[in-house]
Amino acid sequence: MLTNRRTIRIEWGDCDAAGIVYFPRYIEYFDACTVHLFEAAGLKKPDMLRLYGMAGYPMVNLGVKFSIPSTFGDDVEVASTIAEWGRTSFKIHHQLIRPEGVAVEAMETRVWTVHDPDNPGRLKSTPIPEDVKARFEA
Amino acid sequence: MLTNRRTIRIEWGDCDAAGIVYFPRYIEYFDACTVHLFEAAGLKKPDMLRLYGMAGYPMVNLGVKFSIPSTFGDDVEVASTIAEWGRTSFKIHHQLIRPEGVAVEAMETRVWTVHDPDNPGRLKSTPIPEDVKARFEA
Amino acid sequence: MLTNRRTIRIEWGDCDAAGIVYFPRYIEYFDACTVHLFEAAGLKKPDMLRLYGMAGYPMVNLGVKFSIPSTFGDDVEVASTIAEWGRTSFKIHHQLIRPEGVAVEAMETRVWTVHDPDNPGRLKSTPIPEDVKARFEA
Amino acid sequence: MLTNRRTIRIEWGDCDAAGIVYFPRYIEYFDACTVHLFEAAGLKKPDMLRLYGMAGYPMVNLGVKFSIPSTFGDDVEVASTIAEWGRTSFKIHHQLIRPEGVAVEAMETRVWTVHDPDNPGRLKSTPIPEDVKARFEA
Repeated sequence: MLTNRRTIRIEWGDCDAAGIVYFPRYIEYFDACTVHLFEAAGLKKPDMLRLYGMAGYPMVNLGVKFSIPSTFGDDVEVASTIAEWGRTSFKIHHQLIRPEGVAVEAMETRVWTVHDPDNPGRLKSTPIPEDVKARFEA
Repeated sequence: MLTNRRTIRIEWGDCDAAGIVYFPRYIEYFDACTVHLFEAAGLKKPDMLRLYGMAGYPMVNLGVKFSIPSTFGDDVEVASTIAEWGRTSFKIHHQLIRPEGVAVEAMETRVWTVHDPDNPGRLKSTPIPEDVKARFEA
Repeated sequence: MLTNRRTIRIEWGDCDAAGIVYFPRYIEYFDACTVHLFEAAGLKKPDMLRLYGMAGYPMVNLGVKFSIPSTFGDDVEVASTIAEWGRTSFKIHHQLIRPEGVAVEAMETRVWTVHDPDNPGRLKSTPIPEDVKARFEA
Repeated sequence: MLTNRRTIRIEWGDCDAAGIVYFPRYIEYFDACTVHLFEAAGLKKPDMLRLYGMAGYPMVNLGVKFSIPSTFGDDVEVASTIAEWGRTSFKIHHQLIRPEGVAVEAMETRVWTVHDPDNPGRLKSTPIPEDVKARFEA
């Protein structure tokens, strides 16, 4: 399964008054890493929305474990991969890695969501296209 | 001219590693205060978008002066008012006030923007409706 | 057990290109709600840091379930309560409530953390003071 | 004078309900670009804080002109340079550049700030070290 790796610079504005990353920022890093994982599979988000009539892949469940803090100026690596394909939902696993080990770990569950052609202005989940899944097998 | 006053709690997550408000957060506070100023004039943003075919009032120019820092747990007041109505643009003045005095001051210049009926998917500036302006005279 | 309720206005800047709350913003709302829960128990965060030599209560585990989206201009309620006291860690439960039902639900696990007197510049977990716990019994 | 150029990816979470960058995010991009400009001059922010007893270089004045919007998935370039050295303050000029031209332009005025050795817990402005200025002449 395709794994995408990115280096992320921890910025001053990502840290809180304790001098460490304000934890919701990790959630934002991981959200961007999901976008980049799809892009590594050849699916840029703006193109996906157009090609598949998608409204996005909203989060339905999120679990995060925080083990080691990071601070501004640190360069960390995030490794992201699809952990599981369901019919309409899928799971993405992220690991934020420091020299000392895995610092933050997250499992996202998202739903493949399209504009409902029968109800203008409404969204609905729909089966994930097989050609999308195939792009992540490597 | 109508002035709207709101109390804003400085949250932990708004502060940086120096223990004071990370300055872009003030810009977000003021953006929300502009929304609340219009609401005080009877114009809720979701209703405005519907009623006037608006796409929003994007920022074209922003000036901010930072004088006194604030920290988490502080309750500060923001006073917001229309400083000037142009034909298609307008200026909003914000003052973030502490017991010691004006802590941060901003002038926003925004443009009244609608969906262009002649070019689907495009936006254009348009004259600000007179009934909108009238609502701020008090 | 003390439950704190707050009304939160969903701001324009909290929403993403799909027009709904960008999900990491919920995590920030809940973090602020934890601060306000302690404050409802008589413990303002700046005072806690001073009184108990605390460095904070960093997150170690976070689980979030997203059920119903919200959009800008919505006023939602968040109900927060301590779900469990451990020796050095504790759990906080948050529910973001809409007229239709519970829209987002989170369980935070945090650790009571102080500056280590034996190792300047280092932090360590420590038993949660009993008088802190007592304040939440109602 | 040294100019630093960085490519910035506009992320989904940086965009608002109108589908374009939520304007305070530009202010955050530029803040990070100032950090990277100093780093390009050999001065990493964590090292600067240690070496010079600095508390930071807080913003005192900010002017931003927004000309062309950007959206998620766009890669834009930011060019940053010192526009002026004062005695204790300095100005940084940022241009966010798109293929069509300069999209956003900002002038930051910041103050070189150190921990006051005579008043523990207090900060004060101080003359910018000459060796710092020299690093930007190229």
